[in-house]
Amino acid sequence: MKKLLDDPAEAVTDSLRGFALAHADLVSVHDSPLFVHRADDRPPGRVAVISGGGSGHEPLHVGFVGHGMLDAAVPGQVFTSPTPDQVTAAVLQAANGAGVLALVKNYTGDVLNFEAGLELADAEGIEVSSVLVDDDVAVEDSQFTAGRRGVAGTLPVEKIAGAAAARGDSLAAVTELARRTVSRVRSMGVALTACTVPHVGRPSFDLAENEVEIGIGIHGEPGRHRVEASGASDITRRLVEPVIADFESLAGEQVLLFVNGMGGTPLSELYVVYAHARGLLEDAGAQVTRSLVGSYVTSLEMQGASVTVLRLDDELTELWDAPVRTPALTW
Amino acid sequence: MKKLLDDPAEAVTDSLRGFALAHADLVSVHDSPLFVHRADDRPPGRVAVISGGGSGHEPLHVGFVGHGMLDAAVPGQVFTSPTPDQVTAAVLQAANGAGVLALVKNYTGDVLNFEAGLELADAEGIEVSSVLVDDDVAVEDSQFTAGRRGVAGTLPVEKIAGAAAARGDSLAAVTELARRTVSRVRSMGVALTACTVPHVGRPSFDLAENEVEIGIGIHGEPGRHRVEASGASDITRRLVEPVIADFESLAGEQVLLFVNGMGGTPLSELYVVYAHARGLLEDAGAQVTRSLVGSYVTSLEMQGASVTVLRLDDELTELWDAPVRTPALTW
Repeated sequence: MKKLLDDPAEAVTDSLRGFALAHADLVSVHDSPLFVHRADDRPPGRVAVISGGGSGHEPLHVGFVGHGMLDAAVPGQVFTSPTPDQVTAAVLQAANGAGVLALVKNYTGDVLNFEAGLELADAEGIEVSSVLVDDDVAVEDSQFTAGRRGVAGTLPVEKIAGAAAARGDSLAAVTELARRTVSRVRSMGVALTACTVPHVGRPSFDLAENEVEIGIGIHGEPGRHRVEASGASDITRRLVEPVIADFESLAGEQVLLFVNGMGGTPLSELYVVYAHARGLLEDAGAQVTRSLVGSYVTSLEMQGASVTVLRLDDELTELWDAPVRTPALTW
Repeated sequence: MKKLLDDPAEAVTDSLRGFALAHADLVSVHDSPLFVHRADDRPPGRVAVISGGGSGHEPLHVGFVGHGMLDAAVPGQVFTSPTPDQVTAAVLQAANGAGVLALVKNYTGDVLNFEAGLELADAEGIEVSSVLVDDDVAVEDSQFTAGRRGVAGTLPVEKIAGAAAARGDSLAAVTELARRTVSRVRSMGVALTACTVPHVGRPSFDLAENEVEIGIGIHGEPGRHRVEASGASDITRRLVEPVIADFESLAGEQVLLFVNGMGGTPLSELYVVYAHARGLLEDAGAQVTRSLVGSYVTSLEMQGASVTVLRLDDELTELWDAPVRTPALTW
């Protein structure tokens, strides 16, 4: 294992130290319990939106803390849920007079620990709500979940909820918008290579030189099946067809197409996937009106990509377009 | 070789097809000869800034076309210089009434082909100038260069020249600012793994499981030496010390610190390198006042990183901070 790390056991805190120094205008890192929160002044009386989960998916979630997206993010160790006390501390810090919404990817550990953390914050008098993100159409239940996994669809949910909070929506309204976004977003991914968790030191699974794993999870969990490595056109079709099939119909719909890299894939390849995915969506009658291409929801250095489709409406489009200023996403 | 590509010989054009579709508000791709240019309206009478070089370093250069940075970019095949006719066509398209500055990374092929392309544009009556970028302190001459190589320092040169052009500076003034930036920027990189050029199909060099290459070029060209893979602290020191030594002195200076990923390295590791590099610069008496961390000047899926330091002054800081809106860099 070759990585640009020192003590593998300190990978998360060592990285966050640099992250805080590089983006001191936007974020602060709170140690013990560990969480990241906005450093800029916030207008009072707004809903706060938080998220979190295991590290190793950077820039998700810490890179999305800032104006117009997350108020705080709670990082666990690599591929490990954060603890309830981290969640509680982040909620208490983020609370800004109008309640706190937690966006939780659907993994059993995250669900339980966020629930426990939110209960403690509620007992401290903070109004809280939570929304589960479960956009991965690849598998119905998995190694770490009851129900579908939360993957790259988390990004648009965080963006849209954050924009609704920034415009002054109530906790109930922001929560409803996050739920609506979850109900309209679907993803599926592929791995070309495995990744290596620093404190484990060996690849999390084996994949033959001529194989790819279709429907991979963001922790290297098994997907739907392994197939022979083929071209981008064929692989993209294997991701997009199940996504399209999971919507009732996309005919006449406006969609956001988000092609996400898993960490070790060149940006140039993501654009090849994007072109194919866009063609397939157009064949299904959809109009791609918003796009995002880049490595935003990663699995360390895994090579691969995922395709996320969000069925837009006027309000979701407006919230997607709203200004955002975070370390990893700015417009 | 597993990549998200179809025909390896068409990797560049297939990728640019997706790139153009995803960013149609910002860029257009011109086929035959191939170049990328701004799609938005530009105020007339401004200097145009162009750049280019071999593909495989994305988002450099095509991802930096847009408001406040490049007017056009000329992509060659992977790790291969663009041809003179591409350069001429890009200059003629980009010219906007006040001359065209070409920013050229110092590789023999790029230097010759840009020179030939600019001469043809000059013969068509376009006022042209060019600036070579040669920020890599690792080697004095190399496989593909006379003199130092141009690497990630190209990004701040493009940003600063583009901002000067956007504010209405003359061709002579933009050219002088680009030269000043080149004279104040230094870089050095490390590879943990090699990369595979699509149409070659095998890694461009061999690196043992316990070795890293210090001073790597962005095409996998040999660096200074191979050393045993060590921790991020030691590796960063091996990059930053030669960079610092190449400046007369950094005591009391304000600097931009740019930690760049080579394409296959997780963002979280780049922040570990950033923290170490910042500490070393502060030990040398510098004050890090601007920061950039991410994979912007890449070598396909190579794992590794580079450190770039730009000695700022008030004007360079103002131009760095000026608004920019491109596919890959926006603030």
